[in-house]
Amino acid sequence: MDMEQVNAMDFGDFVDVFGNVIERCPLVAAAVWSQRPFADPGDLEARFCAFLDALPQEGQEGILRCHPDLAGRELQRGTLTAESQREQRAAGLQGLAAAERDHLAMLNAQYRARFGFPFVLAARLRDPASVARELERRLHCPPAQELRTALGEVKTIGRLRLADLLGTEPARL
Amino acid sequence: MDMEQVNAMDFGDFVDVFGNVIERCPLVAAAVWSQRPFADPGDLEARFCAFLDALPQEGQEGILRCHPDLAGRELQRGTLTAESQREQRAAGLQGLAAAERDHLAMLNAQYRARFGFPFVLAARLRDPASVARELERRLHCPPAQELRTALGEVKTIGRLRLADLLGTEPARL
Repeated sequence: MDMEQVNAMDFGDFVDVFGNVIERCPLVAAAVWSQRPFADPGDLEARFCAFLDALPQEGQEGILRCHPDLAGRELQRGTLTAESQREQRAAGLQGLAAAERDHLAMLNAQYRARFGFPFVLAARLRDPASVARELERRLHCPPAQELRTALGEVKTIGRLRLADLLGTEPARL
Repeated sequence: MDMEQVNAMDFGDFVDVFGNVIERCPLVAAAVWSQRPFADPGDLEARFCAFLDALPQEGQEGILRCHPDLAGRELQRGTLTAESQREQRAAGLQGLAAAERDHLAMLNAQYRARFGFPFVLAARLRDPASVARELERRLHCPPAQELRTALGEVKTIGRLRLADLLGTEPARL
């Protein structure tokens, strides 16, 4: 898909295509459409990121709360979005032994209780051991720092999804 | 449901219950959860409205773009959210003759082309004739005024949905 095609989309088509660049938040794509035309894929990425950065703190926390747990119930039940399913599969989270799954579930619950949002990580760049290590590490970070880190992961996930949709290499990973 | 129950919800339960108070924007409920505890239903309503008011203009336009057309293809196909389905049915939009449906479709298309978002109206307070009249009237409003009017309708829809969920009378209609 080239930028000419993207810039020619009405908002309905745009949200159909880019509505899950930010997990379960089609509002973000629907807002970014206001900024068209986009110069290039990097410009489109930057508009998604700028919208996230401009949200008040509760809005950024809201974005995080629309994400599923990694290796959580939704993966088991098959109710993830197609993008999340693919990413969690790529990280090898679908084939975990029960003990590993329980360990991650315990860490996820501790993380949610501490920060008030789920642990978000660009999973497809990881394997199960590094997901668990990163969760254990971030569990002890100060809340303000952790919000910034988590939002950075949302952006990385978004860049990878945009690159998939546009058939480009993701910028600035 | 009383406020004690609402205030005891974790963010997952809260988004499950209130995620469609703002049509297809669970992000808003997920953000509002940060503001708990809520004093009373009016306080909860006010938090939803305050979040919408604090969004940049493109975010408010994004909220509107997540709404379906009234009497549009989604009503025909049965792909509306349960809340929208009920509201459009209450306005008598399901039983329209083909000519009335085509007339509304033409007006909706004109409105989308002029403003860059769909015509949003708290439909359950209307009947088909008043929906068409209101669409014809608002089609000629200045864009900045129309954005404010449309956002007011989003809030009215949200208040009615909250009142349904909480079993209360909606405030400030």
